[in-house]
Amino acid sequence: MKISELSERSGVPVATVKFYIREGMLPRGEALSTTRAEYGEEHLSRLTLIGALADVRGLPLSRVRDILALIDAPDDDPIATLGRAVGALPPYVESDRDDYPRAREAIGELGLTYDPDFTAVPQLDEALRALEAAGLDASPAVLRRYSDAMRQVATEELAPMAGMSRAEAVPYAVLGTALYEPVMLALRRLAHHHLLATGPDGGRLSEEKPASV
Amino acid sequence: MKISELSERSGVPVATVKFYIREGMLPRGEALSTTRAEYGEEHLSRLTLIGALADVRGLPLSRVRDILALIDAPDDDPIATLGRAVGALPPYVESDRDDYPRAREAIGELGLTYDPDFTAVPQLDEALRALEAAGLDASPAVLRRYSDAMRQVATEELAPMAGMSRAEAVPYAVLGTALYEPVMLALRRLAHHHLLATGPDGGRLSEEKPASV
Repeated sequence: MKISELSERSGVPVATVKFYIREGMLPRGEALSTTRAEYGEEHLSRLTLIGALADVRGLPLSRVRDILALIDAPDDDPIATLGRAVGALPPYVESDRDDYPRAREAIGELGLTYDPDFTAVPQLDEALRALEAAGLDASPAVLRRYSDAMRQVATEELAPMAGMSRAEAVPYAVLGTALYEPVMLALRRLAHHHLLATGPDGGRLSEEKPASV
Repeated sequence: MKISELSERSGVPVATVKFYIREGMLPRGEALSTTRAEYGEEHLSRLTLIGALADVRGLPLSRVRDILALIDAPDDDPIATLGRAVGALPPYVESDRDDYPRAREAIGELGLTYDPDFTAVPQLDEALRALEAAGLDASPAVLRRYSDAMRQVATEELAPMAGMSRAEAVPYAVLGTALYEPVMLALRRLAHHHLLATGPDGGRLSEEKPASV
């Protein structure tokens, strides 16, 4: 298809399509002449993917580019690829420290792997610092609530990768890390809403409070 | 303490402290004269909280102000308060629709409450749209993985609220919604890392849980 049709079908303006090509986020079309190129379904689906990451997930374009680069040329080491994918996702923690005492302690208690080079470690450290600042409970018992749920989720998420080729596994891991997060957060909020709205099992707040209010 | 000491102890510049006061995010100090005011520990802890929401959680200042307003003058209806708190958190979905077919269908299948006025509903709809755009699995079986984990987490999160006064419960719900999210996301990423690093049989979860979870 021509660039005009690609634009129309994707809903992405021609100028933006050309920008993505210049930025290396979208492959060039097949040159038919010096001024015309032919685009295919793979261009359409790449534009859809950019939209999912940039518009829906709300990632800055530079981070979208990082994620596309990981998909296009994954690191040989899956852990390094995962680490770089996580580094392309918020929260963006800038740090030149090489020790994260809050995270190290929590990770030790939870029986996870502490690797200060993995970007989720400073992310956890910052998140724990915020709990502390807000006076919220960051005790091992409370952290285990989240850790147990996330290990369960992660185990199920990784299971299908055993049957995938690397070409399938890397986009699955990279995009899955980015795009199941908002699903999970929305479902947590919906679960609160549901429990508050529907009564005694979890709806204690909606039954009016005891006289201690 | 004087404003200079408040600034020093909080690490927040005096000009920023004054800005927060003008914006209604920080109460005025007790006036000692026309040019001097006395600040207390409650000012210090409010500055720490603003830092947690703005710097650590990375919320725009306008959203931090919304959250503080919820804490200071909560809605009478806890569900409305929760809804407004969720609306102050990313992702910020702008929508004038009143139906979210993807979310409605998923919520129905998961047995949750569908309320199109609750901001998590459009958030879920957008998140599902992104999965679809990226070609990721959004089948009921996969969504149930996240929903089950989040219901478990949400039930444990709400349990302590039964023993709280409203003055305690509202900050707990509002701040907990905002500040446990990054903890959970970091722990999901760490769980992936751990499982990939230790191999499919190395994770503690697979040792602890019987095969049929």
